[in-house]
Amino acid sequence: MSVSNLRIDRARVLARIDALARIGAIDGGGVCRLALSDEDRAGRDQVVSWMRAAGLAVSVDRIGNVVGVRAGRVAGAPVMTGSHIDTVRTGGRYDGNLGVLAGLEVVETLNDAGITTEHPLAVAFFTNEEGARFAPDMMGSLGYVGGMQVDDILATVGIDGTSVGENLERIGYAGDAPVGDPRVRAFVELHVEQGPVLEEEGRTIGVVESVQGISWTELTITGVSNHAGTTPMRLRHDAGFAATAIAVEARAIAREFGGDQVATVGALTLKPNLVNVVANHALMTVDLRNTDEQRLRDAEARMAAFIENLAREEGVSIGARSLARFEPVVFDPDMVARVEAHALAHGHGVRRMPSGAGHDAQMFARVCPTAMIFVPSVGGISHNVKEYTAPDDIEAGANVLLSVLVEQAGL
Amino acid sequence: MSVSNLRIDRARVLARIDALARIGAIDGGGVCRLALSDEDRAGRDQVVSWMRAAGLAVSVDRIGNVVGVRAGRVAGAPVMTGSHIDTVRTGGRYDGNLGVLAGLEVVETLNDAGITTEHPLAVAFFTNEEGARFAPDMMGSLGYVGGMQVDDILATVGIDGTSVGENLERIGYAGDAPVGDPRVRAFVELHVEQGPVLEEEGRTIGVVESVQGISWTELTITGVSNHAGTTPMRLRHDAGFAATAIAVEARAIAREFGGDQVATVGALTLKPNLVNVVANHALMTVDLRNTDEQRLRDAEARMAAFIENLAREEGVSIGARSLARFEPVVFDPDMVARVEAHALAHGHGVRRMPSGAGHDAQMFARVCPTAMIFVPSVGGISHNVKEYTAPDDIEAGANVLLSVLVEQAGL
Repeated sequence: MSVSNLRIDRARVLARIDALARIGAIDGGGVCRLALSDEDRAGRDQVVSWMRAAGLAVSVDRIGNVVGVRAGRVAGAPVMTGSHIDTVRTGGRYDGNLGVLAGLEVVETLNDAGITTEHPLAVAFFTNEEGARFAPDMMGSLGYVGGMQVDDILATVGIDGTSVGENLERIGYAGDAPVGDPRVRAFVELHVEQGPVLEEEGRTIGVVESVQGISWTELTITGVSNHAGTTPMRLRHDAGFAATAIAVEARAIAREFGGDQVATVGALTLKPNLVNVVANHALMTVDLRNTDEQRLRDAEARMAAFIENLAREEGVSIGARSLARFEPVVFDPDMVARVEAHALAHGHGVRRMPSGAGHDAQMFARVCPTAMIFVPSVGGISHNVKEYTAPDDIEAGANVLLSVLVEQAGL
Repeated sequence: MSVSNLRIDRARVLARIDALARIGAIDGGGVCRLALSDEDRAGRDQVVSWMRAAGLAVSVDRIGNVVGVRAGRVAGAPVMTGSHIDTVRTGGRYDGNLGVLAGLEVVETLNDAGITTEHPLAVAFFTNEEGARFAPDMMGSLGYVGGMQVDDILATVGIDGTSVGENLERIGYAGDAPVGDPRVRAFVELHVEQGPVLEEEGRTIGVVESVQGISWTELTITGVSNHAGTTPMRLRHDAGFAATAIAVEARAIAREFGGDQVATVGALTLKPNLVNVVANHALMTVDLRNTDEQRLRDAEARMAAFIENLAREEGVSIGARSLARFEPVVFDPDMVARVEAHALAHGHGVRRMPSGAGHDAQMFARVCPTAMIFVPSVGGISHNVKEYTAPDDIEAGANVLLSVLVEQAGL
């Protein structure tokens, strides 16, 4: 069999996506496997068993990252692919999972064809990419490349008051491999676009050139609870009003900045949260993203000035804590060009594009040549049970991944 | 002892306020006795035992209202005083409780003086005045005067998914007395102001002429959950943004209408409530109040128009459900004049005023001559653990209540 004719087994990868999606399945076809939950453990156990069945040498590091290595003709740093299998609370079945299972499918395809690459290949999944339970997001890959200390990761406390470390112990994924081992020769990640661009333009493969910068801030607002009927407006210190005014300002920033700027208040909780009581407490998040670092800083500065002024006018205190801050990332131009060349060689419609979401690959861009391959998300819908990518597109993306990995690993 | 020299026992009523506040006590000196909770049951048991010890004939009606009657020289409709002992989640110790315990103190004072009034006197506390667990608020007194059917009250489901009826059974306050029995000759309620006016003006007694109208609406907003990074702003259907925009509009209505208009969004919950997911669901309340019915209708209409336009622009659906709607109430002018006369005769600084909060008394205004007596709230703070009314003011209010009740009941 000629390597250029090598193709992944569509039915096998689709069956595995279905099987993994049954773990933590929720109504509507979606998945809930929050990082380090019981469902995440069950998903991890499933993928690890597949990795072992495919002959990979599996290691688990101290922060729960799982790496399966397929030996090459020479020892040394592997070419790595991978992504994550944790999801948001109302997640879809493709986000992250596709990249891991397509990587596994590449290994199976090489096994079936009896091909050994020059350099080792590795398939990995990283802990807590979503950040839906622990902040920051992309935690496992950030730790892998040395961007966050292992002790700090283990001590991170999530939304339910428990730490990464104790949950790793609880689910049996507190491994003993050193974090960051093995070092990586090159990194390629296949992922669903999670946006509408490829579908709108009728293209199959997105060649990701960059990832937008992310700024996540948690705000804690303290006002004075009081009676909603008897308290004149001029005497109120309403934490709920302050929180909602910040959310409306976030939308105004996105509208006025235009371009790539997005802004989201996804989480907002009031106390005591009663119809007839002015709230004395609000906890909320602000998510700002831009592909341009200076524009992102401008957006952060405008929000900070708004918050300072609002706190003074409403007579509330507003504390801010950074949950995540990642500058925009530009991928290696040569790697990007190789992804594009292989996608074109496969006959696909191709578009170079930025990523609106953060991905594990952006962390590896700090330490090795890195690229990403996108496939279309129907309706641009993601982080939603309705997330869907067509089988043809999954097959196309996995075959491009196969070609790029084989080229990087060498024959 | 001359009746005009009759005075309540300050130490006794203060001791009872303290004792009742220990039931359901929360940090900071406040109380949490949500309607029909275990804490409410314990509070009810305490007050009923005091009523019985004071010789009152206690009855519990089908919706849990408790009435203690002190016989007069003639049979027939009693002059009633009372209020409520349920609280909001972060309530104070005076709201409602003062009116009930001051009524009990009037009975004890008459007992001590060996005075029998011509008409019976009754002290009552009414179920779920606060509305913090079940809507509408003032439920018990509304039912008492025939404003809501008993079956509808019993079937009302609260914030925890359980009904008024099952909770009444659970705590042992599903009584057998007919609701609305006995009929009432006149009704007088002592209450803390819950606002800042009396303190700011240095007056001791507020003579309540009216109660502002209340409009409570629950809004359920349905959008589309999606990725906070990859979803262009133009493609969002953000239930969270819609909710916060409505809250900001409520504040704008209060500011632009001015006068007595107040507007509060005290409750707001998002789903899935995650930093990086556009919310697909929001549940919130809007509380609008005005002493003028036409202005209140204008405020409701402006909010409804805003919501309709917002739903169209954001591409979300917004369902509205009325939780409570009470028109402004004007108390009986003769009763109001008698309260004022007695307060002046006691030598107090007096102010005629509207009530910003709803009270059980406003329901009785539908069926009998009714009035209310206010005493100052320090800092205007209520629905807050810091709620405080000075002992001198409690004593003053209870003595005015004594005078008015004795006059209405006759000697």
